[in-house]
Amino acid sequence: MKRSFVITELLKKKRDGGTLDAEELEWLIRNYVKGAIPDYQMSAFLMAVYFRGMSSDELLNFVRIMRDSGAKLDLSRVPGFHLDKHSTGGVGDKISLVLAPVLASLGLSVPMISGRGLGHSGGTLDKLEAIPGLKTRIPVQRFVEILSQVGFVIAGQTEDMVPADKKLYALRDATATVDSIPLVVGSILSKKLAEDLDGLILDVKTGKGAFFPKKKDAVQLARILVEIATEFGVITRALLTSMDQPVGYAVGNWLEVVETVDCLTNQGPEDTMELVEALAVLALQVSGDRHPLNHQLARIRKAISSGEAFDRFLRYVSLMGGDPAILEHPERFPLPKPVVYTAPREGYIEDLDAYRIGMAAFYAGAGRLKVEDPVDAVAGIRLHKKMGDWVQQDEPIAEIYTVRVDMLDQILEEISSAVRIIPYKPVQTEPLIYGEVTLKGEIRSFP
Amino acid sequence: MKRSFVITELLKKKRDGGTLDAEELEWLIRNYVKGAIPDYQMSAFLMAVYFRGMSSDELLNFVRIMRDSGAKLDLSRVPGFHLDKHSTGGVGDKISLVLAPVLASLGLSVPMISGRGLGHSGGTLDKLEAIPGLKTRIPVQRFVEILSQVGFVIAGQTEDMVPADKKLYALRDATATVDSIPLVVGSILSKKLAEDLDGLILDVKTGKGAFFPKKKDAVQLARILVEIATEFGVITRALLTSMDQPVGYAVGNWLEVVETVDCLTNQGPEDTMELVEALAVLALQVSGDRHPLNHQLARIRKAISSGEAFDRFLRYVSLMGGDPAILEHPERFPLPKPVVYTAPREGYIEDLDAYRIGMAAFYAGAGRLKVEDPVDAVAGIRLHKKMGDWVQQDEPIAEIYTVRVDMLDQILEEISSAVRIIPYKPVQTEPLIYGEVTLKGEIRSFP
Repeated sequence: MKRSFVITELLKKKRDGGTLDAEELEWLIRNYVKGAIPDYQMSAFLMAVYFRGMSSDELLNFVRIMRDSGAKLDLSRVPGFHLDKHSTGGVGDKISLVLAPVLASLGLSVPMISGRGLGHSGGTLDKLEAIPGLKTRIPVQRFVEILSQVGFVIAGQTEDMVPADKKLYALRDATATVDSIPLVVGSILSKKLAEDLDGLILDVKTGKGAFFPKKKDAVQLARILVEIATEFGVITRALLTSMDQPVGYAVGNWLEVVETVDCLTNQGPEDTMELVEALAVLALQVSGDRHPLNHQLARIRKAISSGEAFDRFLRYVSLMGGDPAILEHPERFPLPKPVVYTAPREGYIEDLDAYRIGMAAFYAGAGRLKVEDPVDAVAGIRLHKKMGDWVQQDEPIAEIYTVRVDMLDQILEEISSAVRIIPYKPVQTEPLIYGEVTLKGEIRSFP
Repeated sequence: MKRSFVITELLKKKRDGGTLDAEELEWLIRNYVKGAIPDYQMSAFLMAVYFRGMSSDELLNFVRIMRDSGAKLDLSRVPGFHLDKHSTGGVGDKISLVLAPVLASLGLSVPMISGRGLGHSGGTLDKLEAIPGLKTRIPVQRFVEILSQVGFVIAGQTEDMVPADKKLYALRDATATVDSIPLVVGSILSKKLAEDLDGLILDVKTGKGAFFPKKKDAVQLARILVEIATEFGVITRALLTSMDQPVGYAVGNWLEVVETVDCLTNQGPEDTMELVEALAVLALQVSGDRHPLNHQLARIRKAISSGEAFDRFLRYVSLMGGDPAILEHPERFPLPKPVVYTAPREGYIEDLDAYRIGMAAFYAGAGRLKVEDPVDAVAGIRLHKKMGDWVQQDEPIAEIYTVRVDMLDQILEEISSAVRIIPYKPVQTEPLIYGEVTLKGEIRSFP
């Protein structure tokens, strides 16, 4: 009875613009995790935070309490510099799958706990699970073993890690409170800081397919992420990158695995490799590497061209229960016959809206609305063009892979409204990498 | 799957300051009532409304949809002008119990569906149920019968009336979204407009113990209530009255029944009778009575002094299953021995904070945190003084009736902080009745 009284007082305090102290936040989160505070009270809190935000101290406490809500990794017996990369998510973003084995090849130790896709955006775990046999839920001990053996590991959170975020994440998704900076920071950093990291690099997305489409918001998010993670003693740096169009050409779980293999076998799309290289350079710098840029880039490229990164990826897949053979012969994977979307006229592609392409992939079956919904590994969109490219009339722009024939009209509508073709006029595109976001919130050219 | 998509879109729309149209609101409310939309999504909506408000049209639709969410009264076979009075609630507010039989004695027909107490504020149904045997939950048919026989009836909502508000009210209480003007208006008017009324009078409270302590907010609430109810064809007028100190001397369910009997037997406290008379005059005017004020006041006073109003009250109690004998001998009701709070020094009582006295009564057991919690009929506070009164040192200011001895310290603390005594200095008090709130939001002297 006393407690229920206190919860409405805390809700009022936040609603009226007050700041919850560490004890109040801890009481709130702890009781929510154990079920003593119901979802409907927490969702009111989330919406109040959406409107009122959190102070720096409040956010610091929030992150710490979320992180400490469950078990944490202990990597003290795994040698090396422990570094993870986090992307704020988007469409076609398979960078983690490429970057992690590359960083491992460079001698870093990469314990990567990833998430699932939601709405228009994909998730690393869904992509990995498109590989036949691979399961991303593994015990902590196995996680540490694979990390030690391969130099990287990508897996889902175990049941007992950061339970506060698991509950809150699902609730935010259902209550239109996803795109709140303090809640996003709490969610990202509570998970990352439970990984026992030395360093963290962030790929903060902005543009049409990003969770924070406005550059100003994305910069603020990046700045706060760096500030808070640094306060916890983790060396942290963030790049601001464009999510106006999808990353690479593939959007959809298996399709992105295939593109990952392309990247790791030196045949990756230009934009995807540009991101991989920039983030790998950032990771090296965070880990203390003081070599000049060209030296770093050469090492990164060699990790791929030598086949070492791909080899680590195959070992990882195998240790996770997946079938590495299919990755060497991805053409053997059975796909539905694609429906082709062709250019209605010739011209330059001025827009290839990542959000709409993401929604098209979602309708095709690649995405989900709720964290517990299943996804279809084969579903997705394979682009033939990127922004700035020239197309002939009737030339294919996108292939649609789906078994949901009833959704085809909707998918085609999304793609058609995603694509804008400007006749006879060259197109100026925004840079892919805006630069590094500093603690002052400035954007510094990188690398 | 489609619906869950739509609900988050509606949440986003409201969150971002948009206006839901009639179809969207209807879909939202209907699905919430039938359980297809869970509490945690509705509470996010409520918090978004708290921050964003509702447009006039939106609120009109909201009220209509709520009203139409269940069964409505049909009073077409009950003769007379059907008028109800609603108070926005507070501490010691037993006005309805006195006013309803008075209005019935004046020839009005008063179908009053009341609510329960919550937090620091009392509820009419809880007070009535302090009368041994009386149950406020009666079938609709019985409601109409008692109204026809006695000229008034006070009861709880039946299960099938305004189910949308029942669910929303409990949720708002648990999520710190009670004091939002559109939500309050929706809740009050959906219920009142389901009563098949010709006229409605409102007692909108302001001050320390009111839900909208600030006069500006209370005036806005009154204005919007009058505006919206009038749009529905019900003649509606509102008084703005003070809830800085409790109404009368009694706070707590049985204690307020006793004070009700005092009022109906011509021994009521001055402030309580002032409110009863002003509201009765307003009711007469709303019903079309064009007599001069002194004529109206004389009729009102005669309804009481003649014993007619009390007689109607006893008949009502009896028809509701209550024991009328105890009302004629309230001293027979077994009460715990009171703990007396005495004046720490002599002086004028400058403050007798209604909110804190309400909380003291709550801790004593008179109130509840959740609508389903039980209340203790005997618990409460009996004041010996009102604001502006002179007290000697050690003179009793309040008697505490409670069986919760473990709560005594907290109760005494609330009372002690409620009472402020200023030495040797006469005190200016605000008026009890500020006046009538007009459709323009002005306060016009009344009566």
